[in-house]
Amino acid sequence: MTVAVYLSLEDKTQWWVDMLADLLPGWTVKALDAVTDPAEVRYAVVWRPRPGDLAKFPNLRAVVSIGAGIDHVLADDKLPRGVPIIRTVGDDLTQRMREYVALHVLRHHRDMPRQLQAQAQKDWHAIVVPVAPRRVVGVMGLGNLGSAAARTLSALGFTTRGWSKSPKDIDGVDTFAGPETMDRFLDGCEILVNLLPLTQQTAGILNAGLFGKLAPGACVINCARGPHLVDADLIAALDSGQIKQATLDVFHVEPLPADSPFWDHPGITVTPHVASQIDADTGGQIIAANLKTFDETGTCADVADAARGY
Amino acid sequence: MTVAVYLSLEDKTQWWVDMLADLLPGWTVKALDAVTDPAEVRYAVVWRPRPGDLAKFPNLRAVVSIGAGIDHVLADDKLPRGVPIIRTVGDDLTQRMREYVALHVLRHHRDMPRQLQAQAQKDWHAIVVPVAPRRVVGVMGLGNLGSAAARTLSALGFTTRGWSKSPKDIDGVDTFAGPETMDRFLDGCEILVNLLPLTQQTAGILNAGLFGKLAPGACVINCARGPHLVDADLIAALDSGQIKQATLDVFHVEPLPADSPFWDHPGITVTPHVASQIDADTGGQIIAANLKTFDETGTCADVADAARGY
Repeated sequence: MTVAVYLSLEDKTQWWVDMLADLLPGWTVKALDAVTDPAEVRYAVVWRPRPGDLAKFPNLRAVVSIGAGIDHVLADDKLPRGVPIIRTVGDDLTQRMREYVALHVLRHHRDMPRQLQAQAQKDWHAIVVPVAPRRVVGVMGLGNLGSAAARTLSALGFTTRGWSKSPKDIDGVDTFAGPETMDRFLDGCEILVNLLPLTQQTAGILNAGLFGKLAPGACVINCARGPHLVDADLIAALDSGQIKQATLDVFHVEPLPADSPFWDHPGITVTPHVASQIDADTGGQIIAANLKTFDETGTCADVADAARGY
Repeated sequence: MTVAVYLSLEDKTQWWVDMLADLLPGWTVKALDAVTDPAEVRYAVVWRPRPGDLAKFPNLRAVVSIGAGIDHVLADDKLPRGVPIIRTVGDDLTQRMREYVALHVLRHHRDMPRQLQAQAQKDWHAIVVPVAPRRVVGVMGLGNLGSAAARTLSALGFTTRGWSKSPKDIDGVDTFAGPETMDRFLDGCEILVNLLPLTQQTAGILNAGLFGKLAPGACVINCARGPHLVDADLIAALDSGQIKQATLDVFHVEPLPADSPFWDHPGITVTPHVASQIDADTGGQIIAANLKTFDETGTCADVADAARGY
């Protein structure tokens, strides 16, 4: 049973090969580029595979996405049709996303960027903000991660809204479903968290039109996918003051190029796609368990819906 | 019925006088320094009164502390004995402290200071940390604020400990009581939050001995009172690496003097006593309600225990 591994991140592939080999005794685990007989490969474990990488394997049974999203796999226009794609999800990833969202919503809520600027100037400048119950926070996307994030924000005391394609019911969260409710969801929203899946419908959703519907001086946190955001629209909205601050964990091109204006824009916090970064040990265990289950039963609970896109 | 108001913060006294006058129709509210007949003053509303300020008033029935702590009132060695001191507490203050503690514990947990340094260098450097359940966080002081903070940290997923003088039982928190349990409480603790009341027993408790008992590279958050901390011991522990980062909201002298080494120490985040800063509207309403209750009944629920010190 041969597994081919490829990560677009430099230096990571061999580390994952070694780890998965330890976790899958009796299996053969190879770097994708080291495969000499494509016919032997049954499974591929990938992060951002290059177009055509997966089409090489005539006997591929499943593709494992190292991450909760499968957009980076579907982006391959030569992807073999009908091969199941297994997402990597789990309590660990959900926990990490809850932490990230709580941290960055609280940072914007309490205006830590400005408080740190005051410190840099040795300025004893107390920034007193409304309490969380008087702060409206919205989460777009109410899948595993978005629902957990919304629940966490509600538990922290925020007035919390959620928006999703199909109706969801979450205790303590005012939920909205479908495009026709979007304007009401955005109206008065002061901190917006994007956790939508990346699909044709959601690409570019964080744009000038949306920013204009938020409360003036709102903050935006994108911890889903880079192409959700129209980069130039964010810069314009920050410069006009319509958006006060943004935290971005994901980008059109990753790593974020050195010449991106995001790096040193005073209104932008850049984190390097770590919101819910798997620590490799935990991720490897989830992936190995999914591969074993799929190999024995022909499916597993984390198979994504490729037609839907997530 | 005359109320005298004094805040050590410049420019704040008259603002509070005007607000309390609005909230207490029929009462006379004056700046303490504008009182011409000391005998008429029945109540004083104060933040850090000067020694002797309160001894001037022979008919004083109660002192209101603008804040949860009463140490700044007890610090007056001429304070008339036996005059009740009313604390200013409430859901609003508890909520603000929960936010502050959650924010700063998460900042240290996810190593935001280092992540922001990486951004400043345009360095795509992913800092992957353990998930919160594998992070041991300790809260010292389990009064209103400490208990709420500990519950919030537990709900965020942290392995949460609490320490207090007398035994407390808090769901999801491993509690320790009394000096003889302190070493066990500190052992392995990676992020320490101080919310103790300031008393003779707790002054200077954040010292080299305590720092040495925490996990190596621990982070410390002081959002109680400045004199809990031995300033020089913190600098030494940061410089040795025993403490990695600290967030300080309170200081021996406030505002923090411009020549304090805390302002530009790379391991220290300074916030200007805002952890649970009352927004004045809410604080004024709590104080006015307490004064009315005290005036009608001779007591109120928020009278502190001056002998205990909190």
